[in-house]
Amino acid sequence: MNEVTEVALSTVFMSEAFGTAILVLLGCGVVANVVLPRTKGNGADWLLISFGWGLAVFSGVYVAHASGAHLNPAVTIGMLARHNAEYAPGVTITPASTVVYLVAQFVGGFVGALVCWLAYKKHFDAAGEEGVATIGVFSTGPEIRSYGWNFVTEVIATFVLVYVILVFGETPSELGPLAVAMLVVAIGACLGGPTGYAINPARDLSPRLVHTLLPIPNKVSSDWSYSWVPVLGPLVGGALAGVAAMVIG
Amino acid sequence: MNEVTEVALSTVFMSEAFGTAILVLLGCGVVANVVLPRTKGNGADWLLISFGWGLAVFSGVYVAHASGAHLNPAVTIGMLARHNAEYAPGVTITPASTVVYLVAQFVGGFVGALVCWLAYKKHFDAAGEEGVATIGVFSTGPEIRSYGWNFVTEVIATFVLVYVILVFGETPSELGPLAVAMLVVAIGACLGGPTGYAINPARDLSPRLVHTLLPIPNKVSSDWSYSWVPVLGPLVGGALAGVAAMVIG
Amino acid sequence: MNEVTEVALSTVFMSEAFGTAILVLLGCGVVANVVLPRTKGNGADWLLISFGWGLAVFSGVYVAHASGAHLNPAVTIGMLARHNAEYAPGVTITPASTVVYLVAQFVGGFVGALVCWLAYKKHFDAAGEEGVATIGVFSTGPEIRSYGWNFVTEVIATFVLVYVILVFGETPSELGPLAVAMLVVAIGACLGGPTGYAINPARDLSPRLVHTLLPIPNKVSSDWSYSWVPVLGPLVGGALAGVAAMVIG
Amino acid sequence: MNEVTEVALSTVFMSEAFGTAILVLLGCGVVANVVLPRTKGNGADWLLISFGWGLAVFSGVYVAHASGAHLNPAVTIGMLARHNAEYAPGVTITPASTVVYLVAQFVGGFVGALVCWLAYKKHFDAAGEEGVATIGVFSTGPEIRSYGWNFVTEVIATFVLVYVILVFGETPSELGPLAVAMLVVAIGACLGGPTGYAINPARDLSPRLVHTLLPIPNKVSSDWSYSWVPVLGPLVGGALAGVAAMVIG
Repeated sequence: MNEVTEVALSTVFMSEAFGTAILVLLGCGVVANVVLPRTKGNGADWLLISFGWGLAVFSGVYVAHASGAHLNPAVTIGMLARHNAEYAPGVTITPASTVVYLVAQFVGGFVGALVCWLAYKKHFDAAGEEGVATIGVFSTGPEIRSYGWNFVTEVIATFVLVYVILVFGETPSELGPLAVAMLVVAIGACLGGPTGYAINPARDLSPRLVHTLLPIPNKVSSDWSYSWVPVLGPLVGGALAGVAAMVIG
Repeated sequence: MNEVTEVALSTVFMSEAFGTAILVLLGCGVVANVVLPRTKGNGADWLLISFGWGLAVFSGVYVAHASGAHLNPAVTIGMLARHNAEYAPGVTITPASTVVYLVAQFVGGFVGALVCWLAYKKHFDAAGEEGVATIGVFSTGPEIRSYGWNFVTEVIATFVLVYVILVFGETPSELGPLAVAMLVVAIGACLGGPTGYAINPARDLSPRLVHTLLPIPNKVSSDWSYSWVPVLGPLVGGALAGVAAMVIG
Repeated sequence: MNEVTEVALSTVFMSEAFGTAILVLLGCGVVANVVLPRTKGNGADWLLISFGWGLAVFSGVYVAHASGAHLNPAVTIGMLARHNAEYAPGVTITPASTVVYLVAQFVGGFVGALVCWLAYKKHFDAAGEEGVATIGVFSTGPEIRSYGWNFVTEVIATFVLVYVILVFGETPSELGPLAVAMLVVAIGACLGGPTGYAINPARDLSPRLVHTLLPIPNKVSSDWSYSWVPVLGPLVGGALAGVAAMVIG
Repeated sequence: MNEVTEVALSTVFMSEAFGTAILVLLGCGVVANVVLPRTKGNGADWLLISFGWGLAVFSGVYVAHASGAHLNPAVTIGMLARHNAEYAPGVTITPASTVVYLVAQFVGGFVGALVCWLAYKKHFDAAGEEGVATIGVFSTGPEIRSYGWNFVTEVIATFVLVYVILVFGETPSELGPLAVAMLVVAIGACLGGPTGYAINPARDLSPRLVHTLLPIPNKVSSDWSYSWVPVLGPLVGGALAGVAAMVIG
């Protein structure tokens, strides 16, 4: 190993924010493609969504190489809980760096959702005209509303995500970002059924805010009453994964 | 090669059990997503299930790196039949280590199925209310019941799985866990049609026990009369593959 | 690194033209398979198209190894805008090499579309008889026509494509052409909904010309009024990505 | 590079035959899963078939590592036409080795189709009872019958397959068998629409013979009048690819 240069927190901020923006742009984009009226992918099935989100992560990871590509507060919290020495090569874990990661992720999620709206602008308008709900493009919601069980589902799914990410390094392979992409496809296909797998507070909360602020015609609701589940569930799941990886891993 | 440290059997147990739990949690999860009522993936097609199980293996392999990630008694038996020297770097083949692998796999399968039930709790409840059979989420069953031919199908499918795994090392690539994931996608897509490709006794028997024990409303049957096929078929297929790999490979 | 030999511009031309031909042959082919009547894949969904185009790029990249496999004027323009020193190992950026890349890409796109027509000849004839529009096999078109917003969508999608390609090298992995393939699957799944993701002027303009020239029965229109959007949008998106990669990346 | 040991022709035979058997078992299996009545995958779409065949090749390549995994007379002929020095490390190109490759491939295709029939036995019986044609499981057939144009399609598709395989080595990556798998997925998705992409005489002719010989109830026809197209087309396509790779590549 060569000596690693320290990475400036401004670089971490730009890297995480830009990477999370790409992640959320593409991820919300695939849902827009399936859900919004008159798109090419309208009505496609869950596999398109699973691959879309997985490969959204894939793309975001390349963009955020400088900061280790957390792109998700649950990952950052998981590393913190595991007592890692660093968040990424050259980025020491401190209160300041932790705040930079989290803020950058939420800012990136906001920007990504906004650009997704631009990319699908005419289809959001069409959704308004045709009375199609649009909150599902931005944020997750449960198929059977039960805050307790929805929370459990998000904890389990995020635990799998963060635990496997934390132990990736112990299996030699040269997949790089493809490994996390396939893991996210797996979680979507396998554990996304009940709640739509937020598994990332920045992916859910920031786009919900964008949905609330945007001039989309005939918005029904941004469903803020559910909004704490896809924030708290992933944070708890990520923290538990970090502890488990420290104890077992 | 560096010298390899001996791996403690307690580590092997934890590794196999945890890895198989992740495998079964995700694998049963994808079937739950397709089969149970009111999920996001309800009614999705066989490709989602094939990819879901393939990537479930992918995720489990990372978690079980310390024990070489068998995650399947058929793989363990295949290595035994091939007269490998080791089950994994640092794990000698002995009666004791063999028992540890097998017990850990069945324990892991039990835990994984249990957590899958938690993740999809409200949808299992809804299945009970709507009269949807739930055994298919946990365990395999044949489309045309014929114990003899169902057994043949499981032997063939497991032979392919275990033989290809045993010769993986002879083709240089850096795919790591992705190789076995893609192999499992192949077997699901190509040989899963008649019996649902158990190809792994721990993946079938332990979840069947969970189905029997759990308080799922309106359970119809856990179909124990079929249960020996997805146990014995994979064991025979795995053993044949081990012998073939020793002779030909 | 060894010293890199200079690559002749005639080699660059052949490499880019042949690679782009393979890309367009396969990419237009998957749309033909879905859209034309009486094919094996008729009516398949958006995921087939997303994977088909992604793996079309995958195949083209291998063929065009000698020229760095741009296969897309937006990539060439992006490298120019980023002030790269070279277009590929051994190919200096000059006005002459730039022209060679661009011309080769358009020539390759023309040849690829022509061969696609040969491969699907009887199905194009059947389309004519059955009154199925065929321009969509060759070139993209918007679902909701709005030149301004369609342009925005193409700029955003191409920005993602070119930016991520430009930063690929900073994340170590051994995926090679699979990385760009997965990125293109992502863009198709996630941002292809409104306009069908041209994201490549040579992939859109040359096949449109082929459609105009070919003796396909009962052609309705080659939709030339839209043709500037999938040319100008990708060029602007690629240039912006190049500038962004220079400033941030 | 180390010195390469010469590989015995008996080893080449076993390797090619076994690898092609796995390829055809899985490949015909995925079609059986989609086409035969009462399977788990019945009615699934073209993407399942594309991935099934691609990953069938993936699995076969591992099994046939000792012989360089041609698994296809078109690949062998392509290497011959390119004037390669060797068919694989340690296997010189001679009339004898050429015959061994070709015979082994056809024998392997026969065995694979036979085992596929065993794996799906009850579903073939059900097909007979329900009047479902079964030749499509074993061999390809055109959607629009036109021997000339069907031949053209097979030539084009096989050219792409063999040419890209021949130039794989010039792009560094560590994908190994996954690269050819993804290429085959691409060809299926993109060029499989008119004829079902035989692109391999051994994959088509030997299973057709199996279909003719097997006691499947109510067989309609093995369509021998078409059988020369998926043999001659791929051989011509492979030879042209070999010449092109020698001249250009």
